[in-house]
Amino acid sequence: MIPRERILAAFRATFASFGFVPIETPHIERMEVLTGKGAGSDEVLRQIFEVTNKGGTPGELALRFDLTVPLARFVAKHIDELGTPFKRYAIGSVFRGERPAKGRFREFAQCDFDTIGTESVHADAETAQVIHAALTSAGIFDFAITLNDRRVLTGLLDSLGLGSRSGPVLRALDKLDKIGADGVREDLKKSADLGGAGLPADNAEQIVELAVRFRGGDEILDDAMKTLGTHSLVETGIANLRAVLELLVAAGLPLNRFRINLGLARGLDYYTGIVFETTVSGWEKFGSIASGGRYDNLASLFTPRRLPGVGASIGLDRLLALLDEAGKLKSTATTVPVLVANFPGIDRTIPVSLASRLRAAGIGAEVFPDPIPIGKQMGYGSKRGHTLAVIVGPDEQANQVFNLRNLMTRQEDKGLAWSVLEDSVASALEIQRLEGAGP
Amino acid sequence: MIPRERILAAFRATFASFGFVPIETPHIERMEVLTGKGAGSDEVLRQIFEVTNKGGTPGELALRFDLTVPLARFVAKHIDELGTPFKRYAIGSVFRGERPAKGRFREFAQCDFDTIGTESVHADAETAQVIHAALTSAGIFDFAITLNDRRVLTGLLDSLGLGSRSGPVLRALDKLDKIGADGVREDLKKSADLGGAGLPADNAEQIVELAVRFRGGDEILDDAMKTLGTHSLVETGIANLRAVLELLVAAGLPLNRFRINLGLARGLDYYTGIVFETTVSGWEKFGSIASGGRYDNLASLFTPRRLPGVGASIGLDRLLALLDEAGKLKSTATTVPVLVANFPGIDRTIPVSLASRLRAAGIGAEVFPDPIPIGKQMGYGSKRGHTLAVIVGPDEQANQVFNLRNLMTRQEDKGLAWSVLEDSVASALEIQRLEGAGP
Repeated sequence: MIPRERILAAFRATFASFGFVPIETPHIERMEVLTGKGAGSDEVLRQIFEVTNKGGTPGELALRFDLTVPLARFVAKHIDELGTPFKRYAIGSVFRGERPAKGRFREFAQCDFDTIGTESVHADAETAQVIHAALTSAGIFDFAITLNDRRVLTGLLDSLGLGSRSGPVLRALDKLDKIGADGVREDLKKSADLGGAGLPADNAEQIVELAVRFRGGDEILDDAMKTLGTHSLVETGIANLRAVLELLVAAGLPLNRFRINLGLARGLDYYTGIVFETTVSGWEKFGSIASGGRYDNLASLFTPRRLPGVGASIGLDRLLALLDEAGKLKSTATTVPVLVANFPGIDRTIPVSLASRLRAAGIGAEVFPDPIPIGKQMGYGSKRGHTLAVIVGPDEQANQVFNLRNLMTRQEDKGLAWSVLEDSVASALEIQRLEGAGP
Repeated sequence: MIPRERILAAFRATFASFGFVPIETPHIERMEVLTGKGAGSDEVLRQIFEVTNKGGTPGELALRFDLTVPLARFVAKHIDELGTPFKRYAIGSVFRGERPAKGRFREFAQCDFDTIGTESVHADAETAQVIHAALTSAGIFDFAITLNDRRVLTGLLDSLGLGSRSGPVLRALDKLDKIGADGVREDLKKSADLGGAGLPADNAEQIVELAVRFRGGDEILDDAMKTLGTHSLVETGIANLRAVLELLVAAGLPLNRFRINLGLARGLDYYTGIVFETTVSGWEKFGSIASGGRYDNLASLFTPRRLPGVGASIGLDRLLALLDEAGKLKSTATTVPVLVANFPGIDRTIPVSLASRLRAAGIGAEVFPDPIPIGKQMGYGSKRGHTLAVIVGPDEQANQVFNLRNLMTRQEDKGLAWSVLEDSVASALEIQRLEGAGP
């Protein structure tokens, strides 16, 4: 939880620095809001947790399964006061009654941010920029954000006369990394009643080629434009991807963190423009840890007003599971660097007063509550991971001095004057930090 | 939500600075954990929300109604790895199917912190100190923390031979501020089958006198010790209150924020030592916004090991409702001070690049996504509450300069060089802040 809180604080600060405002909606929603047309896939709807209390009506309330449907309800109701563009972030638990597995939980946290009421490429690019900034701020560097614009696929299918089969085609494409090109080709050719897309072999081949061939850096866009660019939707999609990359460069981001994949679909039918997914290098098996895209209309269920938008969701618990398995979660059991000992027999106000002075100087400090033998107190500090211990025994009390023990190196500075407490502790912490063993 | 997030961040930082570690448990618990003996009052148990999903067993799962029962379950399971003292904080939603009213919600956030595994007076005093520090860090200054030690009441009842009636006596005493001394006296005398304590008139009088007379500053403790101090529990309780006040002074806190009230019971039967409640001056009708106390045994339901502790809970949503009604929630609709305009016709990379530079310098900045007429963009900024707008039109683009408009005073500095962007914006924000109109 300590690294989790640190990551969440970094995410919140990142979202806020781009002007996203925090919006929190209840964990419980009306069932009809969650099950409305297009709110969630059949699979998600099957996993809904119903909520009832004594005197309540069964079937009326349920736990949210994502943060997007509650956002749609909220925005539909309040958009006139809010005005557009409206940028919000939300961090909270969502609930799905699915079988738990590695990186899959029945209750997990999502960190969502969305920009609503604009179709600007600035908002598209900013979404990728925020994913990048959030992960970087959390100390994660070895990741790749994959981009596509769904209009490229839509345009290609349209030009092949396959517009009506986009659903099964997109589902098949999303499995490319799992089942390989041959598997996708089979899925595309398989008849619809067997769960396939029912495509002729040559069409299946063209689509697989798109997905396999057009993956890589921005250089593939020229090639794609030449090969595919006769349909206006394809051209628009490729131009939009180009503009997004241009803005990401302007934002000072390293282009090698971004990849184009013209076969990327990101399942959900409602994405209509740019789509994103994010994997950590070497840990692709965990799936995407930050995904999203542009949608034409967020809240059609709740308002006749058309509300286009773009956003993404960072899967915090999946990310933490990944960092844990990668051994990148620093194990620590304390939030403060300093333990102030409670030496048996000394004036009990002394440790309280010294710790308060440290906190006032911005240095977190914990007072050991019980005046037990000092060795045990030091053992507690070492186990918890405190860096320093401030110790005042009877002699030190008489001389108004303290001893400063480094719990990592076991070195101890003795007889320091109380008047230099804050400075001594601050500089000892700084030395420890520079030596790389600090918190 | 913007001030709510600010207050939460202040609470988290405060809890952490005392060495409390964050622990988060799921919103959903097993029903048997929540309804176990002594887990909650009958009233709370009637308000439980049950949770079921397709294929799940009805009655198996429920939403937590507080953060204490989940803590008990967690600590009982993990105390051997954790070691004691164990200090944790938790911030999260809890759920009660009660009738919503002012300051009462069906879903509301609690901010809890507890120190487990010690009976030290240091932990008692620190609990009051943390309430004080958390509220102060959130910008709330006009509050009073009321203290009692339940042993004073227990000892008095014991010496009167009324130990077996402590439940109804404590419930009656807790109503003192609502129904007055006469009401409490009646409740104490009323027979048990009418919901009273069934006390003789002279005993009822003694108890009411205790509650009415012994309220005030630390000076009442001498008086109380003379009047009541013949029972060892009474003496222990008064001595503990004295020691707590002594430590609060050592921590540098103003004693006038703390009050003694020897009649304070804080209902819940499981408090056995110090108890706290906190009211905001002039807003007492909202009830206590931060309450807690010492308990002999946190997790008797889950482990034979005795785990004494002390802790408190800050009612965030009640506090926010109070601040809102008091007009003390600053209304703002943005998290950043700077809006970077998107002037029609200029190179679209320019606003992105300038905003990125500001963020890198620690200054939050939002790029307006659509190149609409500049007046509308400024209107958006004024409505949202941005302090400054950075504007680059075609002329400014040609000369690599920008205009800096103060959206509050409408003053505009023109033709500033891009190279001085960060410094110009930082100093304009500082001036605005000093003039008291800033964010």
